[in-house]
Amino acid sequence: MRTKVVIVGAGPAGLMLGRLLDLAGIDNLILERKSAEYVLGRIRAGVLEQGSVDLMDRALLGERLHKEGLVHDGTVLSFDGDSHRLDFTALVGRHVTVYGQTEVTRDLMAARQGQTIYEAEDVALHDFDGKPYVTWRKDGITQRADCDYIAGCDGYHGVSRASVPAAALTTFERLYPFGWLGVLVDKPPVSDELIYAHHARGFALCSQRSPTRSRYYVQVDAAEKLENWSDDQFWDELRRRLDPAIAESLQTGPALEKSIAPLRSFVAEPLRFGRLFLAGDAAHIVPPTGAKGLNLAMSDVAMLADGLIEFYSEGSPAGLDAYSTRALARIWKAERFSWWMTSLLHVFPDAGAFGRRIQRAEFDYLVGSRAAQQSLAENYTGLPQ
Amino acid sequence: MRTKVVIVGAGPAGLMLGRLLDLAGIDNLILERKSAEYVLGRIRAGVLEQGSVDLMDRALLGERLHKEGLVHDGTVLSFDGDSHRLDFTALVGRHVTVYGQTEVTRDLMAARQGQTIYEAEDVALHDFDGKPYVTWRKDGITQRADCDYIAGCDGYHGVSRASVPAAALTTFERLYPFGWLGVLVDKPPVSDELIYAHHARGFALCSQRSPTRSRYYVQVDAAEKLENWSDDQFWDELRRRLDPAIAESLQTGPALEKSIAPLRSFVAEPLRFGRLFLAGDAAHIVPPTGAKGLNLAMSDVAMLADGLIEFYSEGSPAGLDAYSTRALARIWKAERFSWWMTSLLHVFPDAGAFGRRIQRAEFDYLVGSRAAQQSLAENYTGLPQ
Repeated sequence: MRTKVVIVGAGPAGLMLGRLLDLAGIDNLILERKSAEYVLGRIRAGVLEQGSVDLMDRALLGERLHKEGLVHDGTVLSFDGDSHRLDFTALVGRHVTVYGQTEVTRDLMAARQGQTIYEAEDVALHDFDGKPYVTWRKDGITQRADCDYIAGCDGYHGVSRASVPAAALTTFERLYPFGWLGVLVDKPPVSDELIYAHHARGFALCSQRSPTRSRYYVQVDAAEKLENWSDDQFWDELRRRLDPAIAESLQTGPALEKSIAPLRSFVAEPLRFGRLFLAGDAAHIVPPTGAKGLNLAMSDVAMLADGLIEFYSEGSPAGLDAYSTRALARIWKAERFSWWMTSLLHVFPDAGAFGRRIQRAEFDYLVGSRAAQQSLAENYTGLPQ
Repeated sequence: MRTKVVIVGAGPAGLMLGRLLDLAGIDNLILERKSAEYVLGRIRAGVLEQGSVDLMDRALLGERLHKEGLVHDGTVLSFDGDSHRLDFTALVGRHVTVYGQTEVTRDLMAARQGQTIYEAEDVALHDFDGKPYVTWRKDGITQRADCDYIAGCDGYHGVSRASVPAAALTTFERLYPFGWLGVLVDKPPVSDELIYAHHARGFALCSQRSPTRSRYYVQVDAAEKLENWSDDQFWDELRRRLDPAIAESLQTGPALEKSIAPLRSFVAEPLRFGRLFLAGDAAHIVPPTGAKGLNLAMSDVAMLADGLIEFYSEGSPAGLDAYSTRALARIWKAERFSWWMTSLLHVFPDAGAFGRRIQRAEFDYLVGSRAAQQSLAENYTGLPQ
């Protein structure tokens, strides 16, 4: 078969790109290694910057988001029990919207017009320096799609970045010596807004997906094993790390999902290799502190879609040529912010006494400085594209 | 002899404390291990926050400072040749004043009313948990002064902090893997304002003491030896690290002074031990990036003087009791800022590729964000006491 753009990966990045191309009348094919059910079963963040909400609107998919999404005008930071609320709206005139990545994906899947092939095995990218095509196996039969462009939206472990010759890629990486143990629970959140807590025992986060579904995290050692954590142990540890008044009103229950995610910063450069473009987690990973992962993926594909639309409607490659540089400028700022917020809020085993005091001084400075709060708020709610 | 306050150290901290006590009619004695000429010969920073200028005014010593001091409304940051000016006055309505530490010291020495004993050998602090006294040797004769309080203003290597039992002190320290090679030269500065430059070869700073005397620095390895650097080698290295247009207009000459200073962050807590108070470098060191050392010493002694004046005029120990906590809150914010500015602008041998890009991202974010610039400017020009 032949299409204009083959999109590898049906996560939110690939689906959003497909949606924007569909709306522009640009023929595209999405290939996904897993089933749709599997994709929807992945539990991910759910804090949307205004730019991501705007993109959902542009994709004509804002209706449910505006109905069910929770507008958060601020967040709470706490440090060893001292809590401070940041009022994003007062600080920078913007807010964030809590709407689970699963819901974004569900809306995009439901609206999908172009073809999506799920459970496509052995996806392989060919000749993206010349006349690109993609092959895959489905029900035992190898198939092929020729195309103008390939968009690699298949995440950190996907085939797209792995198809690029190592010599053409420059990668930047930092592994953190800890992970997040997360629990999803069908109980109302302990607070209307998110609570980011630094505690001597480690970081904790009170997040949420909806008024009845909460997501909580505690920092654990990178080598920690999930089987060491019963639900009760998780709740006990979380309570220890929260303001006692907050801990008291925490509603607990059986974990719907429980997992440990490593924390990693990663960027691969550039984002273009001939007729292959990388977007989202395929090109970069941020630690989850600050919730930038989904938002970065959304801004990547918005820029990439604009480039493709410009090319197909006006014949100009300018947007595509600028994509890598433009997207990377935004990516590095989000990488910096995510690294900074991670550094502020986590306990680092090798920080030493001076490093721990610097963290505290950073918090004390932050809660006393409008400029510092504005800086955090403008990053958290999303820097301009 | 008997006095109210023995001040150990005749650097700017000790002399300013003595001056403020003199003006309040509180009898005090300053003991200094070195000669006055030696103290004046030490080359130090010269960027005064408004709070330090105000303190000189309060000390009735602002006249020459206001005449000869250079008001700097901003500074230039550059990163790998990309330069950006920060306009402090536009950002936060404050500026800094360039007036060498040597000049501050000279003014304070000239105004000194109370007794100062220079070349006091073997200064020793006694019984500061009970009835304190200080002994020293001068011209071969051991002398003693009984007092109510001792103020340790004798720097990082001084006897005051060393007199405190180790178990009573908590120290926090970071050594940086580099130092500053500095050259003082009788040539007009290359720029009206300071230039802080990050370069792949290392940090460089174009500073100044007066319209005809400049001070330049380049980052060198912590183990570097001064004898490896001829004047010509220094100027060549400095030029390489500057914007070529700036480097071209650099006026060089024989070094009046050339030295390598290690970079260190250090804090000792608390600042009070019975009737002994520590102030300035005796209690804390900042790396010179951001020029906080002298300013912190000035704010320490201003708070300490207020506490002593309150005690002697009203009999209330409240200010003295609050001194350590109050001063440390400000010290840690300055430690944080100095550490941050050092981290942004220097080349760290172990930063790795990701760390180097984060530095660049920090610069790129900074030059695009008014909030981030305001944050830098409010710290650089001096946070409120």
